Amino acid sequence: MTAPTSRRRVVEWVDGVSRAHEDRLIAEEPLEIRISAPGSSDRRLGVTMRTPGHDFELAAGLVLAEGVVNSRDDLAGIAYCTDADLTDAQRFNVVTVALTGPPTRTWQERSLRATSACGVCGTDSLDEVETLVAGLPERPVAVDGAWEPFALASLPDELRRHQRHFDRTGGAHAAGLFRPDGTVVVVREDVGRHNAVDKAVGHCLLEGSLREGLPTAGLALCTSGRIGFEIVQKAAVAGVTAVVGVGAPTTLAARLCDRTGLTLAGFARDGRVVVYADPTLDAP
Amino acid sequence: MTAPTSRRRVVEWVDGVSRAHEDRLIAEEPLEIRISAPGSSDRRLGVTMRTPGHDFELAAGLVLAEGVVNSRDDLAGIAYCTDADLTDAQRFNVVTVALTGPPTRTWQERSLRATSACGVCGTDSLDEVETLVAGLPERPVAVDGAWEPFALASLPDELRRHQRHFDRTGGAHAAGLFRPDGTVVVVREDVGRHNAVDKAVGHCLLEGSLREGLPTAGLALCTSGRIGFEIVQKAAVAGVTAVVGVGAPTTLAARLCDRTGLTLAGFARDGRVVVYADPTLDAP
Repeated sequence: MTAPTSRRRVVEWVDGVSRAHEDRLIAEEPLEIRISAPGSSDRRLGVTMRTPGHDFELAAGLVLAEGVVNSRDDLAGIAYCTDADLTDAQRFNVVTVALTGPPTRTWQERSLRATSACGVCGTDSLDEVETLVAGLPERPVAVDGAWEPFALASLPDELRRHQRHFDRTGGAHAAGLFRPDGTVVVVREDVGRHNAVDKAVGHCLLEGSLREGLPTAGLALCTSGRIGFEIVQKAAVAGVTAVVGVGAPTTLAARLCDRTGLTLAGFARDGRVVVYADPTLDAP
Repeated sequence: MTAPTSRRRVVEWVDGVSRAHEDRLIAEEPLEIRISAPGSSDRRLGVTMRTPGHDFELAAGLVLAEGVVNSRDDLAGIAYCTDADLTDAQRFNVVTVALTGPPTRTWQERSLRATSACGVCGTDSLDEVETLVAGLPERPVAVDGAWEPFALASLPDELRRHQRHFDRTGGAHAAGLFRPDGTVVVVREDVGRHNAVDKAVGHCLLEGSLREGLPTAGLALCTSGRIGFEIVQKAAVAGVTAVVGVGAPTTLAARLCDRTGLTLAGFARDGRVVVYADPTLDAP
């Protein structure tokens, strides 16, 4: 399997003076994810460019976010490709997620719906996620686990302390899940922001802590980057109650938080945080 | 059409003290892109979450990057959806790219290939892009337009001076194309790094300056973020000779630059730049 970082000779220029040295780059490789369900042939969910490592967590988090599974019980297993004629590099870039039953929802159906129905739009997307979130079992009541905005402000600093790949490469995003007392549940790094979130959520799903055991209604998702629609979608489906980032949120991310009752905070650093959505306040 | 930024009431916390005020968020809406070719029914290329504005440039840049067209001559026109039963919001989230002939390559074929051939991997992806780049007409000789590393160091500062949406929201990426004398050809902003690149390249394609007129072999692509495989893919297909970013490149981005003869530089700021690939040097 490819290592998550690798060395490369580089030339650094500072004020016109050059110096050759060795640098570390974050690894990026495609990962193809396939779905295997009883009684039907394998189907491809998609390909994501990711940093190798925690690939099964990535696959688990992605199938949850896409609604292909609703809980740990829907997963029969996850494995690398076993086709005999593959090289090692290829083998570790294909993961098959085996389900215990039919997919609860498929990526393909979603694509077809958008194609045939002329009219993917912001409102449609919000409706879709709201339906997906509402259909999940054992939904926590979000407002019970609302975070104090001030507590959210400190999470990126805590996240930063766990970013080993970033320390070495300067090129990796991170996502972490945190308890209300500020302690960390898991931190994952990846070249892609979305992959980092999938890995962190997938970790909890595989550990069995997402839907049972830990009070997920109280967890917050902290991301090292900006907060777009898809980040909030993953957070809402995973049942966390707050999303906080070092960067800015988008309009659609804020609207999805309004609809699903998540607290949304951005620009969290140095004791400062901006709260864009808060279910304990009146609707904007 | 949705505006590229919009206002929202927020609560800002600084050292435990809160203050309500109005903030601006970068707009994020899905854009569905369809391909219309003579003698066949419309086909969906994909959906991207983007900041509204310069949508036709985005579509033009994306179809070039994906190899659906090879030049301006392959484009018959680009238009918003005209289905009568759509709301305005929906209408402006669907764009149809009309071709003068059959697509030179399609997204669907690419997906099927990866599905049926078990083995999407880094090497396959590099081969695919190399084939795509080699098949394009009128390829500039990359090394003729090689940039001095020191000249690349200043491009992010110049890019920054054009980032109006970022000034207002702190949440927008930017991509710019620059001439060897450091002057700007075009800068585009978007919530997505890849979209910003597509818009900048698409602008040149639609203006007719990409394949004719301007010496594209000498242009450099500057991005506000990190440099992954897909950014370099778009740059290579567009025929630029250098890619420079404020952030870090990935392993696969560096390998693709080695293969296609692009200069690759990262961490460009404050008179400093790190060069990861340079066709004028010996191969690493």
